[in-house]
Amino acid sequence: MKRYGIIMAGGSGTRFWPLSRRKMPKQFLNVTGKDAMVNETIDRLFPVIEKEDIFIVTGKDQAELTDRTVNGRLSKSHILAEPAARNTAACVGYAAMELIRKYGDGIMGIFSSDHYIKDEAGFRAVLERAVEEAEKSDSLVTIGIKPYFPATGYGYIKRKDAESLEVEEFVEKPDQETAEKYLESGNYLWNSGMFVWKASVILKQFEKLLPDIYGYLMEIGESMGTEKERDTIEAVYPKIPKISIDYGIMERAENVLVLEGDFGWNDVGSLDAIEILHETDENGNVICGESVSLDAKNCISFGTDKLIALLGVSNLIVAETKDTVLVCEKSRAQDVKKIVERLEADGKEQYL
Amino acid sequence: MKRYGIIMAGGSGTRFWPLSRRKMPKQFLNVTGKDAMVNETIDRLFPVIEKEDIFIVTGKDQAELTDRTVNGRLSKSHILAEPAARNTAACVGYAAMELIRKYGDGIMGIFSSDHYIKDEAGFRAVLERAVEEAEKSDSLVTIGIKPYFPATGYGYIKRKDAESLEVEEFVEKPDQETAEKYLESGNYLWNSGMFVWKASVILKQFEKLLPDIYGYLMEIGESMGTEKERDTIEAVYPKIPKISIDYGIMERAENVLVLEGDFGWNDVGSLDAIEILHETDENGNVICGESVSLDAKNCISFGTDKLIALLGVSNLIVAETKDTVLVCEKSRAQDVKKIVERLEADGKEQYL
Repeated sequence: MKRYGIIMAGGSGTRFWPLSRRKMPKQFLNVTGKDAMVNETIDRLFPVIEKEDIFIVTGKDQAELTDRTVNGRLSKSHILAEPAARNTAACVGYAAMELIRKYGDGIMGIFSSDHYIKDEAGFRAVLERAVEEAEKSDSLVTIGIKPYFPATGYGYIKRKDAESLEVEEFVEKPDQETAEKYLESGNYLWNSGMFVWKASVILKQFEKLLPDIYGYLMEIGESMGTEKERDTIEAVYPKIPKISIDYGIMERAENVLVLEGDFGWNDVGSLDAIEILHETDENGNVICGESVSLDAKNCISFGTDKLIALLGVSNLIVAETKDTVLVCEKSRAQDVKKIVERLEADGKEQYL
Repeated sequence: MKRYGIIMAGGSGTRFWPLSRRKMPKQFLNVTGKDAMVNETIDRLFPVIEKEDIFIVTGKDQAELTDRTVNGRLSKSHILAEPAARNTAACVGYAAMELIRKYGDGIMGIFSSDHYIKDEAGFRAVLERAVEEAEKSDSLVTIGIKPYFPATGYGYIKRKDAESLEVEEFVEKPDQETAEKYLESGNYLWNSGMFVWKASVILKQFEKLLPDIYGYLMEIGESMGTEKERDTIEAVYPKIPKISIDYGIMERAENVLVLEGDFGWNDVGSLDAIEILHETDENGNVICGESVSLDAKNCISFGTDKLIALLGVSNLIVAETKDTVLVCEKSRAQDVKKIVERLEADGKEQYL
């Protein structure tokens, strides 16, 4: 069966500020020093999914930037522009409809555009299994990540037992104590937001579980290939209720399977994750860009055009961009979004 | 008697990096947010000394920059360019000879170009007294600063007692214990490097105590006003032994008086001094330039063209210039010179 890759690139994460900006979300940044995250996401799917069968769904304001960033990896027709951000259910449904109407049914794998995977071969092995599972059954297959610490920042997927693919339930982000129990039990995996299913199967789920959204998707689907396609999308898409695919379908569907992935996944959710993407020096520092340091320990220094000098400092994140410098205690990386809120409140739009 | 101001602006301090640079020493920086330090130095002398009677001695590489910075405050002929840096005795001797030969004997006050004085009226009152003392006697008058903490970074001047102007001795930078004794005794003042004397008197001291330097100065003096002046200075000046006026004359002369100054003097010796020149906010931060902060305490943030964001950090100095960002633990400000040495060793001349 045909295999498609759907990369969701509509995010505008503020927790990666100042590296990410409204006009330059994280997925377009080169955080690893190799390539833009979205390009790394595309490239790591091959050969499980061929490049010409990959699609990116993004906001229409970012379609241009997406095209420029992927730089010929995908044809323009494979960049699906959402007129408005309507959360992940809309995004997945739109992509499924696009496939069914224009390219024919097939397995579709859904991926975030801004996550990191260290062991790409390991990832592809699990993905291949997921594709095969989705092909042989009409299941909704998800790849859960084997937890290695009691994370409170992720949702979890509970499987029946460690040998089973059968999902018992999706659970919300836990508190510390609960996260520790999850880790100990061995039956819980992190919800990474990677899904694999047939386009026709997920559309059936929309019809069953999200009939209102299904109605809008059908309206869009019927316009596809006609002159009215763009106008219809522009008119209908913004009406789609904002709901996540997790909440709208995964948590409620019955035929959900989970495969365990253990391939060095990270959602690069805040600046401290830079540490995971790079080698540290003998003092525990990660240094990107021109730098000099003396008695600096466990710092992350991410420079663009200036020399960054660190003297006698520890556990800091220093991030320099064309118009900003952030200096942040590493344990406070999550609170970068509060700085963004402050800038917004102060009307300093130019820095957002 | 005529009064002259001699401002020594030959310094190239590295402890103020990255704000100061080889081509932009501290005296040319606007550190207070008001004006370049050298201009503040000029302006605060008036009306004790008239602007047209002020001279700046600087390195010939910096004569242009000096002229540009003072921007008409002084005529070009009052910028005395040293062909080579030969320490302060040479500098003072050269200025004294210039005065005697071209302008006539008078009281000359010697000032550093890169020190800060908070209470300018208080300073002028002491300076006026110093001028009067130098005028009525042939003494070497120095202004000592009343210590308010046991500083180990300054030399001290011991006076006979707290009521006396008579200097007993100049002493080197003390260790902590000794500094505490000095502070307690009340007889010790910080050596600020401000001196007031007649040009003729200091030249007589050169003749007596530094006869070799006096010989070179006479050779230069004889060329003054002739066609050979510049060539003679170029040839002779670099031969003058490098010795400080303190060590060469003040510590050895007999007719030395000291006046106590208590006017908020600071030598702005390292970046942490910025704190003294500016108001702190309610969290103890000094913020210069565009900035946003959250849970930042007791930091100094000195930005030029970028927004500096501080998140959850304490006791840091962040200094941003056109090509560098320094992030430094405040207590390590003195060690900035080690960063400069490291850059020098690494051949990164462009950042020096």
